Amino acid sequence: MTPLRHFDQVINSVKANEPVTIAVAAAADHHVMEAVIDAHQQGIARFILIDDQEKMERIAAHHSFSLTDVEVMHQPELTQTARDAVRAVHDRKANIVMKGMIQTADFLRAVLHKEYGLAKGGVLSHIAAFQIPGYDRLVLVTDSGLNIAPTLKEKVQIIENAISLSHSIGVREPKVALLGAIELVNPNMPATMDAAVLTQMNRRGQIRGALIDGPLALDNAISLAAAEQKGIESEVAGMADVLVVPNIESGNILYKSLSYFAHSQIGSLVVGASAPVVLTSRSDGHQNKLRSIALAVLQARQQLSK
Amino acid sequence: MTPLRHFDQVINSVKANEPVTIAVAAAADHHVMEAVIDAHQQGIARFILIDDQEKMERIAAHHSFSLTDVEVMHQPELTQTARDAVRAVHDRKANIVMKGMIQTADFLRAVLHKEYGLAKGGVLSHIAAFQIPGYDRLVLVTDSGLNIAPTLKEKVQIIENAISLSHSIGVREPKVALLGAIELVNPNMPATMDAAVLTQMNRRGQIRGALIDGPLALDNAISLAAAEQKGIESEVAGMADVLVVPNIESGNILYKSLSYFAHSQIGSLVVGASAPVVLTSRSDGHQNKLRSIALAVLQARQQLSK
Repeated sequence: MTPLRHFDQVINSVKANEPVTIAVAAAADHHVMEAVIDAHQQGIARFILIDDQEKMERIAAHHSFSLTDVEVMHQPELTQTARDAVRAVHDRKANIVMKGMIQTADFLRAVLHKEYGLAKGGVLSHIAAFQIPGYDRLVLVTDSGLNIAPTLKEKVQIIENAISLSHSIGVREPKVALLGAIELVNPNMPATMDAAVLTQMNRRGQIRGALIDGPLALDNAISLAAAEQKGIESEVAGMADVLVVPNIESGNILYKSLSYFAHSQIGSLVVGASAPVVLTSRSDGHQNKLRSIALAVLQARQQLSK
Repeated sequence: MTPLRHFDQVINSVKANEPVTIAVAAAADHHVMEAVIDAHQQGIARFILIDDQEKMERIAAHHSFSLTDVEVMHQPELTQTARDAVRAVHDRKANIVMKGMIQTADFLRAVLHKEYGLAKGGVLSHIAAFQIPGYDRLVLVTDSGLNIAPTLKEKVQIIENAISLSHSIGVREPKVALLGAIELVNPNMPATMDAAVLTQMNRRGQIRGALIDGPLALDNAISLAAAEQKGIESEVAGMADVLVVPNIESGNILYKSLSYFAHSQIGSLVVGASAPVVLTSRSDGHQNKLRSIALAVLQARQQLSK
């Protein structure tokens, strides 16, 4: 598989293969339904839609869509829709679980449920993929949404989750940049210490499937010229496929900056569970949801193939 | 004074008034000299250049400039150039001190020198001004360069320094957004707690001269649509003049993102000392240095007028 460098390539790659099934909790929402209909009609995924049936039918009709084309589960109780969706994945009726119009906390509680949940004992992490105008590849940023101030151990798994998604989009040995405020190790900046440790863990084979280097400032990570000017010798610098942020604030600020000021296209998902989790928010538009679904399909196929 | 919304307006405003004097430590560098010559010729500032005289003359000649037009202090010892520059400000021969080709740590040691240094016992902080394509005003971001993980007390002074620079560029009551990963107070995210406290301190008149609100995520701070979608009622949201970042990592990552991906014009300086400090780095281009000088001149005039 050649690396997918743009979202168009991601979508086309997904279409070219047999669709997998997505269970959607609280699907009775216009934005969610639009993305679902689009993904269904483009052959990107199959769906199990879970919510109050009458509500779903009304919204589908509004979009000139007949629910007879997809599987529907009537569930009028909102938090129960999340449990049903997760259980559908647990019972192998679906390969991906997706959040509709339900609180994230309620949704994640079902994902992490002890009995039928999807956690494998590992760290779930949020990964956002960006197609930034002027940058030659999709960049994964993690974790800007779930882990607040990850420990070193948690960072290992956050990195491994991002490596897994990189492999899913065909980047065989992703270049992972561990971001800090500077490219030097500074004992007063814990993020730079963690970055140095994680880099060495990669060299020792304790984190595999990627080239990892840090600390790097963002400019060193994504600009060869900036890296050269600083005299940084690195196989990662200037060519990062993955940007690992030190904390949720820097991740969220980077996410919003790339979205609002750099006009990037974005898709995102949660990796680390036994199946991919699509966790887009209300403010994410239809295209963003569609891209997230496509990424989740690629990730699900890879997880299924193991 | 009407608010200066673009760097062109900043430069023009500076030219329209009597120039102030900048003492440059370690001035014998091509990039530094280019910015100095340009600022001198445009009437933006007067200069005292401190370094090895022969070296400076050679570089000036290379740029077809005669050093007879500026004041020159021969000082062959590198770290001593910083002390001389700071002392010039201390002795009121100059109004601004600027770092040339010398290590930041050595330069700042002179700025903070107990006897003739410029610290007033307060917090020095780095402020970067961005002209972002598509945003209708200059945005100040602080602190992305000096304070690693500021305490609440330090944040108060960091905010006050930014308010001071806002006033210098004619924004009488700047809207200050305290950034977090979310707009809700979350006890697991210290940045959001600090933001709430600082907002209330502003309401109680403990921080004056600005409208302060937080926590706000970056999108809520700079996009009215994003703020409205979240239902945030705020006089700051969507219209921020100042973005206060919670830690140096998020500041640096935002700085680099706005520079490399959003193609912003940037100028920066250090505020909080008895005189403005221009602390541009090697990688900052000539225009960046010129904009930084212009901001420092406006700030110096305001500090002198008090």
